[in-house]
Amino acid sequence: MTSIMTEAATGAAAPDSELIPVTATRGFPYISSRAEAEIAGTIVLEMIAAHIAEVDAVVIAAYGDPGLYAARELFDLPVVGMAEAAMLTACMLGSQFSLVTFSEDLVPWYRESLTVAGLSSRLASIRVPPAEFKSVINVQSELRAPLYTEVTAAAEQDGADVVILGGAPLAGLAGQLSDAPAVLVDPVSAAVKQAEALVCVAPRGAYAGSMKRPPAKINSGIDARLGEWIAKSGH
Amino acid sequence: MTSIMTEAATGAAAPDSELIPVTATRGFPYISSRAEAEIAGTIVLEMIAAHIAEVDAVVIAAYGDPGLYAARELFDLPVVGMAEAAMLTACMLGSQFSLVTFSEDLVPWYRESLTVAGLSSRLASIRVPPAEFKSVINVQSELRAPLYTEVTAAAEQDGADVVILGGAPLAGLAGQLSDAPAVLVDPVSAAVKQAEALVCVAPRGAYAGSMKRPPAKINSGIDARLGEWIAKSGH
Amino acid sequence: MTSIMTEAATGAAAPDSELIPVTATRGFPYISSRAEAEIAGTIVLEMIAAHIAEVDAVVIAAYGDPGLYAARELFDLPVVGMAEAAMLTACMLGSQFSLVTFSEDLVPWYRESLTVAGLSSRLASIRVPPAEFKSVINVQSELRAPLYTEVTAAAEQDGADVVILGGAPLAGLAGQLSDAPAVLVDPVSAAVKQAEALVCVAPRGAYAGSMKRPPAKINSGIDARLGEWIAKSGH
Amino acid sequence: MTSIMTEAATGAAAPDSELIPVTATRGFPYISSRAEAEIAGTIVLEMIAAHIAEVDAVVIAAYGDPGLYAARELFDLPVVGMAEAAMLTACMLGSQFSLVTFSEDLVPWYRESLTVAGLSSRLASIRVPPAEFKSVINVQSELRAPLYTEVTAAAEQDGADVVILGGAPLAGLAGQLSDAPAVLVDPVSAAVKQAEALVCVAPRGAYAGSMKRPPAKINSGIDARLGEWIAKSGH
Amino acid sequence: MTSIMTEAATGAAAPDSELIPVTATRGFPYISSRAEAEIAGTIVLEMIAAHIAEVDAVVIAAYGDPGLYAARELFDLPVVGMAEAAMLTACMLGSQFSLVTFSEDLVPWYRESLTVAGLSSRLASIRVPPAEFKSVINVQSELRAPLYTEVTAAAEQDGADVVILGGAPLAGLAGQLSDAPAVLVDPVSAAVKQAEALVCVAPRGAYAGSMKRPPAKINSGIDARLGEWIAKSGH
Amino acid sequence: MTSIMTEAATGAAAPDSELIPVTATRGFPYISSRAEAEIAGTIVLEMIAAHIAEVDAVVIAAYGDPGLYAARELFDLPVVGMAEAAMLTACMLGSQFSLVTFSEDLVPWYRESLTVAGLSSRLASIRVPPAEFKSVINVQSELRAPLYTEVTAAAEQDGADVVILGGAPLAGLAGQLSDAPAVLVDPVSAAVKQAEALVCVAPRGAYAGSMKRPPAKINSGIDARLGEWIAKSGH
Repeated sequence: MTSIMTEAATGAAAPDSELIPVTATRGFPYISSRAEAEIAGTIVLEMIAAHIAEVDAVVIAAYGDPGLYAARELFDLPVVGMAEAAMLTACMLGSQFSLVTFSEDLVPWYRESLTVAGLSSRLASIRVPPAEFKSVINVQSELRAPLYTEVTAAAEQDGADVVILGGAPLAGLAGQLSDAPAVLVDPVSAAVKQAEALVCVAPRGAYAGSMKRPPAKINSGIDARLGEWIAKSGH
Repeated sequence: MTSIMTEAATGAAAPDSELIPVTATRGFPYISSRAEAEIAGTIVLEMIAAHIAEVDAVVIAAYGDPGLYAARELFDLPVVGMAEAAMLTACMLGSQFSLVTFSEDLVPWYRESLTVAGLSSRLASIRVPPAEFKSVINVQSELRAPLYTEVTAAAEQDGADVVILGGAPLAGLAGQLSDAPAVLVDPVSAAVKQAEALVCVAPRGAYAGSMKRPPAKINSGIDARLGEWIAKSGH
Repeated sequence: MTSIMTEAATGAAAPDSELIPVTATRGFPYISSRAEAEIAGTIVLEMIAAHIAEVDAVVIAAYGDPGLYAARELFDLPVVGMAEAAMLTACMLGSQFSLVTFSEDLVPWYRESLTVAGLSSRLASIRVPPAEFKSVINVQSELRAPLYTEVTAAAEQDGADVVILGGAPLAGLAGQLSDAPAVLVDPVSAAVKQAEALVCVAPRGAYAGSMKRPPAKINSGIDARLGEWIAKSGH
Repeated sequence: MTSIMTEAATGAAAPDSELIPVTATRGFPYISSRAEAEIAGTIVLEMIAAHIAEVDAVVIAAYGDPGLYAARELFDLPVVGMAEAAMLTACMLGSQFSLVTFSEDLVPWYRESLTVAGLSSRLASIRVPPAEFKSVINVQSELRAPLYTEVTAAAEQDGADVVILGGAPLAGLAGQLSDAPAVLVDPVSAAVKQAEALVCVAPRGAYAGSMKRPPAKINSGIDARLGEWIAKSGH
Repeated sequence: MTSIMTEAATGAAAPDSELIPVTATRGFPYISSRAEAEIAGTIVLEMIAAHIAEVDAVVIAAYGDPGLYAARELFDLPVVGMAEAAMLTACMLGSQFSLVTFSEDLVPWYRESLTVAGLSSRLASIRVPPAEFKSVINVQSELRAPLYTEVTAAAEQDGADVVILGGAPLAGLAGQLSDAPAVLVDPVSAAVKQAEALVCVAPRGAYAGSMKRPPAKINSGIDARLGEWIAKSGH
Repeated sequence: MTSIMTEAATGAAAPDSELIPVTATRGFPYISSRAEAEIAGTIVLEMIAAHIAEVDAVVIAAYGDPGLYAARELFDLPVVGMAEAAMLTACMLGSQFSLVTFSEDLVPWYRESLTVAGLSSRLASIRVPPAEFKSVINVQSELRAPLYTEVTAAAEQDGADVVILGGAPLAGLAGQLSDAPAVLVDPVSAAVKQAEALVCVAPRGAYAGSMKRPPAKINSGIDARLGEWIAKSGH
C-alpha cells in the first residue's frame, strides 16, 4: 500500500520536495472502519513524534484523516489529511463533488471527514460499486470498470462536477480514467500539493488558537516518544 | 476523579442498576485536549473489550466522548457519551443550551461533540470563567462562584434556557447550584439515565447500518484483548 | 388507541414508575394532520392543567408532539413528546435515522417535529408503505409486512442505522420486528424512559429562560381549568 | 388593537381590496407566549371557518402567525402570516434583517417563525428595548425612543440592512421612523400586499401536496363551524 | 421573449401599475449560463441607469436574477428578481417547492439564486424534461407535455407542494396547467406583484446597511450613463 | 496595486512558475462594492479571453473573486480566486477563521464569497479597524497597528485560529505580522499555491458537469475576443 501511494505522491511532488514514506509498524494492514481509524489516530501521532525532526510537513496517508486535528494541535508544522485536501481541492473544480470508493465499510468513516470539514452542502453523493474484490492491493485493476461506472453515475445522475477517488488503494487511479465525465481528484496528489502550499503560506502549520499546543501533561503507558513529547509540550 | 463521578452516577442510577466504575490504567490523569482525547479513544476501546462480558451498557465517563462512535461500531451494547447524553437531555429542557466548563483548553474538543451531534443550531454559547484553579480535583469548590457567574451570563446574556456543566471534575455540581437562572444538566446523571433508557429501548445498542460491527481484521501491536476482539469480529 | 399505547408504555416503565393514562374527552379519535394537531395542542394543555397535581412528568402520547413547547412553557414539570424523545434516542443508536409510518397524511406534521428539534442533518428518510389499511386500530397487523419492507428499504437504500416507527397505532410494534436490518425505536418506550430520565436530572422540567412561565394573562372562552392556570401564572 | 392594525392595513391595501377586520371573540387581549399562541391557533381556525365564504384571502393579524400552516392545510385560499410576510419582504430589501419588538416575552415565539421559514441564515439579531411600558395599546408612543435606539443598534452593531418592527401594537410605526439607518418593514403592510400578491399568483392558495386538505375526520367538542368543516373536508 | 414576458406581466399588474418593457440592446438573445449571466449583470445595471428617472421599481426579467444585489446596492428603488420573487412567493404556498425548467444548461445558474436566498432547506427538487426543443421561443408549446410530466413528478415523487416554472420562455405557462398536482408559480407574475408590494412597503427599496449606495468611484471604459452614475454616487 | 500583488505572488511562486501580471485596462482603480465587482466580473472574462493562449492557470487577483464561477465555466484551465483560495487554505490551519480587511465597504461583497463556498460554519468573524486611511495604496503602512489590533481581537475574542488578511492592498502584509496570535493567511500567496496545485492535480481545471463549457451563443455589443470565444464555445 505504501508503495502505491508513494508512486502517486512522487508524480505530484515538486522537484524540490523530498518525500519520506513511512509505514506504520503496528496496527492494521489498511483501515476500513471508525474503530480502526480511532486506533490508527494514535499511531499517526506516534509516527509524527518519531519523525518530526526530519520533516517540514506531514501527509497522513489514509483517506479519512485519522488523528488529523490532534496532530495539528500537538505539532507545529503543516499536517495534511488526504480526505480534507481532496475535498478542498474539489471545491475549486466544481460546485458539487462526489466521493467514489471501493467498499461500503469505508463510507461511514469517510462521511465523518465531510462533517468535520463543514462541507456537507458541497457533496453530491458517495458511491461504491456493488462488485466484490479479492485483494485490497489489486482493487484498482479488479474494479476499474465498476468504479468507472460509479464515477459516471455520480456525474450524470447525482450532479457531481468533480469526483474524488477515495481510499489508499485507489491512489493514482484518477490519472488513468482521463475520459471520465467529471473532473477526477487523486487524494494523494491533492495532499502533496496542499502540503507544499502550506509550507509556503504557513510554515508553522496550525499553531494558534484552538490549535495551539496543549499544556504539558504527565502520562503513562503510551508510546515513549509520543509520551515524552506530550509531557514536555505546553504553551 | 473516578470517585467524584461515581458519586454523581450513584445518585442518578435506578435502584436496580449496578454501576461498575473503571479507571483507565494508562493514559492521562484527565483529558484536556484533542490529542489526549484521540489517545484516550483507543484506551476506551481497550477498557470496553476488557469488561464487555460484565456489563449491559457502557458510559464513557469523559465529557467529550472519546471513542464513542468507534465503540458503538465495535461493540453491540448501548454506549453512552456524557457530552452527547447531556446535550440530548438539554434539548428536552429548553430551546437553546449553553455549555459552561472550567478551562479554555477543553473548549475545542467539547465543541467537536456538538458538530458530530448535528446540534449546532441549539447551542447558545460556550463559557469558561476567567479564573485560574490550582487542582483539577477541587475545581468545584475553587471555582464555584465564577462558574455560577458564567451560568448566569449564559442565561441572561446568551439566551440559554439550559446550561450543561461540562467536564468530569464538575460532576454533581449541578445539584448544588439550584437557584441558577437556567436549568442545569449534570452530564454524569444524564449519561446514566440515557444508558438505562437504551438498555430498555434498544438493548443491543447501535448494531446496524453504519454502526454494524466491522469485518474481522488482522492486527498487530495493539492491546491484546482489543486486538483479539477486532480479529474475530465481523458481520 | 390509549390501551395500545399504555401496554407499550407499561413494558418500558421502571418498577417504581406509575403510569396514569389519560384519554382526551374532546377532539379527534386520532390526529393525522397539522390542523388536527393544532387543535389537539390546546387540548393537551387542558389535560395537563387538569392533572398537574397528580403527576411528576407528562408524556404527550401523540407522535408529532402537539402542544409540546407550549406545555413546557406553561407548566414546570418534565414534559416529553414522543417524536422528540424517539429522535433524540435514535441519535444515540446510529448516525442517521429514518422514520417509518403508516399514512402519507401524517408526514408533513411529523416532518415539522424534525425541524423544530434542529435534527434535519440526522434524518435519512421518511417512508410510508403504499398499502391501504382498513382500521387505524389494526394497522400493526394489517400493514406488518409492508412496514417491514419500508424499514428494510430505509436501512438498505437510504442509509438509516436506526428506524423510528412513528404514530400512535404502531406503539409496541418495534419489539415484534426484531430481525430488522436497523435498530428500531418505539416512541412510546423512548418517551417513558426520557420522562424517567428528566424526573431525575431536572425534576422541575423546562422552567427557565424562554421556557419560564409567562406572565399572568386574563382570558375568556377557554377551558376553565386552563384559563384559571393562565390567569394566575406569572413570573 | 384591531383598530391600530386596521389603520395600518388600510394604508397599504390596493384601491380595489376590501378589508374585513375580525376580532377574536374568545382568547386573550393579545398574545405574548407560545402557550397563548397555541390556543390562539385554534381560534384562528375557528375564525376562518366562520368567514370563509366572505373572503378571497386571510391575513392572520398576530405577529408570530398562530395556526398558519394548519390554516393553509385546512382552507383552500391564500393565508398570510404577518411574521412570514414581513420576513420574506425583508429578504428583498437587504442581505440581513433584524427583528425589533417591545417585550422579551414575545421573543421565543417570534423566533420560532424564523425556524419554520428556514430563514435563520438571514437573521442579524432580535432586539428588545430594556424599557418598561404601561399599556400595550400605547406601546408605540411610550417606547418610541427606545425602539428607535434598538433599530439603530441593529443596523450599526448587528449588520442589519432591514428591520422588522414586530408585534401587533407596533403596526404602522415603521412609517413614522423614516430617518432610521435601516429599511423598516411594517408587518401589517407586508401581509396585506402579500395577500394581494397571492390572490393574483395563486388564488386557491396552498392546496396541494403537504398542504392539501386533510381527509374528513369525525370530531367532538370543538367549535361548531370548524368541527363541521373538518368533518366534511377531505380529498 | 420580451413580448411573452410582457403579456404575462400585464396579466398580473394592478390597474394602476404601468409596465415599461425594456429589451437589452447588447448581449445575448437569452441567458443560459453563469458566464452569460455575469455579463448580463452589467447590462442590467446599464439599463437601470438609463431608465431610472422613469420608473418606481425595477423587475429584472431573467430568471436567475443577473445583477440583482449590485442593482439594489447602486440604485435606491425597489429591484425585484424573478427567481427570488418566485421562491419567496412559493414559501407562502407550501412547505417545499420545486423548480421545473426547460434546459439543463440553466440549472447551475438557477441553483445559485437558491443559495443566495438562503432557501436551500425549502427546495424539494430541480427538474428538467429530457426532451429537446427546436426554438427557445416556442418552448411552451413544444415541451408542454414533458414539462407537465416533470411538474407531476416533482409533486408526487419529490414532495413539492409548489412548483416554479422557471425561465423567461415559460412565462405565463403556469396559468395554462391548472390541473397540475402542485400549486404553480409564474415568476413574471410573482415579480410584478412583489414590485408592487415593495413600492408600498419600502418605496426607496434596499438603501441601507450593506445595500447603501457605495462611495463615488472614478471609472473608465464602461457604459457612459452607468459610469457617470457610479462616479457621482456615494454616501 | 498590481505591483504590490505581484511582489507577494513572486515570493510564493515555485521556481518553475512564471507569473504574468495583467492589469485591467478599463473599470475601476480597485473594487470596493458588489456593483463594481459585478462589472469587474465581465472584465475578468475579457482579460482571460485575451490571455488564454499564454497561460496554464489564472488567478483572479481581487479578493472577492469577481467572475470566478463564470470563468471556470467558460474556460478549461484552472481558475483560482483569492478569497476562495485563502478560505480553503485557512481550513487546513485551524477550526475557525476570521477575515480582517481595511474598509467596511468591502464586507458585504467579501461575505458573499463565504456563502458561495458553503463555509459559513467555519467563519469566526469579519473585522475592520475603525480607523480611516488616506490612500488605498498605503493602507498597509497607514493601518498596520489598527489591523494588528483586529487580528488580535479575532483570535482572542472571536475564537479564530486563523486570520485571512483580505483585500488586494493588504497583499504580503501577513508576512510582516509574524508575532500575531493567529495563523495569518496571505490570499495572494494562497492563490498562487492553489493555482500550482490545480495545474498538477487537474490541469484542465473545472471542465465537467455544471462547469462544462456552455453551448455556443450568438452575442453582440460585448468585448470582441470574449464575444468570439462565446460564439464558438460549446459542448
